[in-house]
Amino acid sequence: MKFRIGHGYDVHQLAEGYELSLGGIKIPHTVGSMGHSDADVLLHAICDALLGALSLGDIGKHFKNTDPQWRGMDSKVFLSKVTEMIGEKGYKVGNIDSTLILEEPKIGKYIPEMKVAIAKCCNIEPDDVSIKATTSETMGFVGKKEGLEAHAVCLLFKD
Amino acid sequence: MKFRIGHGYDVHQLAEGYELSLGGIKIPHTVGSMGHSDADVLLHAICDALLGALSLGDIGKHFKNTDPQWRGMDSKVFLSKVTEMIGEKGYKVGNIDSTLILEEPKIGKYIPEMKVAIAKCCNIEPDDVSIKATTSETMGFVGKKEGLEAHAVCLLFKD
Amino acid sequence: MKFRIGHGYDVHQLAEGYELSLGGIKIPHTVGSMGHSDADVLLHAICDALLGALSLGDIGKHFKNTDPQWRGMDSKVFLSKVTEMIGEKGYKVGNIDSTLILEEPKIGKYIPEMKVAIAKCCNIEPDDVSIKATTSETMGFVGKKEGLEAHAVCLLFKD
Repeated sequence: MKFRIGHGYDVHQLAEGYELSLGGIKIPHTVGSMGHSDADVLLHAICDALLGALSLGDIGKHFKNTDPQWRGMDSKVFLSKVTEMIGEKGYKVGNIDSTLILEEPKIGKYIPEMKVAIAKCCNIEPDDVSIKATTSETMGFVGKKEGLEAHAVCLLFKD
Repeated sequence: MKFRIGHGYDVHQLAEGYELSLGGIKIPHTVGSMGHSDADVLLHAICDALLGALSLGDIGKHFKNTDPQWRGMDSKVFLSKVTEMIGEKGYKVGNIDSTLILEEPKIGKYIPEMKVAIAKCCNIEPDDVSIKATTSETMGFVGKKEGLEAHAVCLLFKD
Repeated sequence: MKFRIGHGYDVHQLAEGYELSLGGIKIPHTVGSMGHSDADVLLHAICDALLGALSLGDIGKHFKNTDPQWRGMDSKVFLSKVTEMIGEKGYKVGNIDSTLILEEPKIGKYIPEMKVAIAKCCNIEPDDVSIKATTSETMGFVGKKEGLEAHAVCLLFKD
């Protein structure tokens, strides 16, 4: 098939004493995202969408959260490696669309920089990446600021 | 790229004293959806999927929830405007698939009318729109009837 | 349109005294998934994605959870029937990507068998199916092990 689609979802807890990495950049905030790597929920969802489109497993399979080499790792490294895996299968990224679900902070002003960071990892243009954001309207674990979630979809194609 | 895909997600609180707008129509119910506009969670998710497919930002960017002109606004106006934006980029909607997650009321009998309303805004046929529904099986904020959610995906194409 | 996309979401409660059917196979565990059929949350999400792509309604429309003939039914029967419906419309499955959100058990070792089971129902190759898994990091109803969720997307094509 010339085209393949993927969907990724990720979730992390928020806590004091951690940095908030989102979409490949550091965002100043009172709490950060907990995880073995930099816990970038958006990049992890995108990695999973890309891997899923080609049935290559998931991020937990390729970058185990018990492996010391990934401790504190910048997730852009994961995204670049995933893009390589896709290339080896003969595919390229068409476009990526994603949604962050988090109560705060507002991330609108950081989106252009995130798009550039993601596009670079995936060998595409910034406008082939979309990042949207919504709150959970104070409901559930996202609304109570205990955690944050991300969804991503992607379309891959073969030349 | 000839094809682009998008994914949208939205969530609103339910409360007495509000109308329940879903998929472009008013549904009689004991509670309604809270928001600045008519708070139509399904149309908002679809708008976000369409915008996201072309990396045009999100519904909150184009129709700010602090702008008095959108207070109580029928979200079909948003969807029509988003469809125009897509057309200006040379794209058309191929198909839209969506899922409402709400505990009650049952919305099956309203789906044909919703499909017609959405198709009209997007210049497509009703059978190019899909609306599915599920409960959250009494769990979480949707299961406790505090709110409702919607997911939507879309495929756009260029002639 | 030559291509169509779909997205499905499903959720079930977990409870003692039920079997845990996931991706078409039985998984040994202390609790199982509650529902009228075998309550296979992954197959239900995939069925909904396939139906949604062609605007054929949802799994609840075709296999009512009040119909005695579906009590305890193996959801692979639903998935095979849905694949037939798609074929009658002239479409085939291109690829399916899915994500299970559940706190336990770890399901990685069962994924190859699930892929084979799903592929057989959909007349595709195992590598045209992707199954990913994540926990909800102890948050929300999934994190508290009250239930489990699944998302699925699919790309259909017409020859």
